[in-house]
Amino acid sequence: MQRIPDAAIRRLPAYLRWLTECQEERVTSVILGQATGYSSEQVRKDLAYFGAFGTRGVGYDVLALREEIYRILRLDRGVRAMVVGAGHLGTALVRYVAQGHQDVQIMALLDSNPEIIGVQVGSLRVESVERLEDIVRELGIGIAVLAVPKEAAVPVADRLAECGVRAILNFAPVAVCTRYPEVFVQPIDLTLELQALSYFVGQRERHSL
Amino acid sequence: MQRIPDAAIRRLPAYLRWLTECQEERVTSVILGQATGYSSEQVRKDLAYFGAFGTRGVGYDVLALREEIYRILRLDRGVRAMVVGAGHLGTALVRYVAQGHQDVQIMALLDSNPEIIGVQVGSLRVESVERLEDIVRELGIGIAVLAVPKEAAVPVADRLAECGVRAILNFAPVAVCTRYPEVFVQPIDLTLELQALSYFVGQRERHSL
Repeated sequence: MQRIPDAAIRRLPAYLRWLTECQEERVTSVILGQATGYSSEQVRKDLAYFGAFGTRGVGYDVLALREEIYRILRLDRGVRAMVVGAGHLGTALVRYVAQGHQDVQIMALLDSNPEIIGVQVGSLRVESVERLEDIVRELGIGIAVLAVPKEAAVPVADRLAECGVRAILNFAPVAVCTRYPEVFVQPIDLTLELQALSYFVGQRERHSL
Repeated sequence: MQRIPDAAIRRLPAYLRWLTECQEERVTSVILGQATGYSSEQVRKDLAYFGAFGTRGVGYDVLALREEIYRILRLDRGVRAMVVGAGHLGTALVRYVAQGHQDVQIMALLDSNPEIIGVQVGSLRVESVERLEDIVRELGIGIAVLAVPKEAAVPVADRLAECGVRAILNFAPVAVCTRYPEVFVQPIDLTLELQALSYFVGQRERHSL
């Protein structure tokens, strides 16, 4: 199997969600694209990376495609995540993800503030960030969500990488790259997202003139 | 000026943040790339879209580049945003963005729950979603952040588009496309992000075997 580009991997969960809710036996790339916001060409290209080829005019087998994406993303094994930083954003993330699917479970919530440690957030009790390495090993955490202040992001990411976490979702407003090239860091910076949208506000105004 | 690809636009705020904090007079694409997590080729290509060309071995003028990106993103005019949905995520977003830069200001927070309407969140009082159209017009809102439940996302997005909002940051776990092609919708789905990271947990394990 050839290496699947990161951008294609990031689109697979959207296809998977739609396929899971779909009632049909077969789906075309046109329909799957419309439902997920991508072009049919993009859908066909993404799925072809792992050998899923639809039949012209008939499309893809929904059940088979769903199982294949599930397997590619390794969701069949279940993935354990934890959130570091139990401020407004960290606690909101824990509550938000707990409402959703159970493929990815948030198993722990950590903070450094003694006043927050021990507080109950949904089904989790906030634990001390001093126990980070122990918790990662005890619970077999593969993914960490960074919701810490800017200053703490890089040192915490290095500790996570060092004790075996392999993927980080970084909400801290700073670029994080660990000393470990095998660790994948996905940034989500809300301020930067809003700044980028500012451009589109302008664009669409100009187009409509 | 040629049309700048959406993906390049989404990288500009990261460059801008680094340039704003930078103390140097000049910066090379190599340094800017390392600091923001992109390749130097990517940096040069992105900046060339709007006519910013560095000088080999000398780089870009930091101040000029900063002002140019600021202008491209229309941040010099200031952009007004609002958040629809004052649950855990919506309120966390309001508090989070309020801490940061002031180029993009969140001017209003709306909800449909009578028990939440009127509650104070940071400097904002939660208003009724029934007033959505009035608030967009009164405050000149260009960007909306959707933090509503799945079922509400599409109808709210249509209302936003209809009254002139031109960019939507969608946190609801559903694909949103409005009936208005001029409205740009950027999805951020935390569950899907975590599912995609599951793949990378697996990848890196395989590489290290």
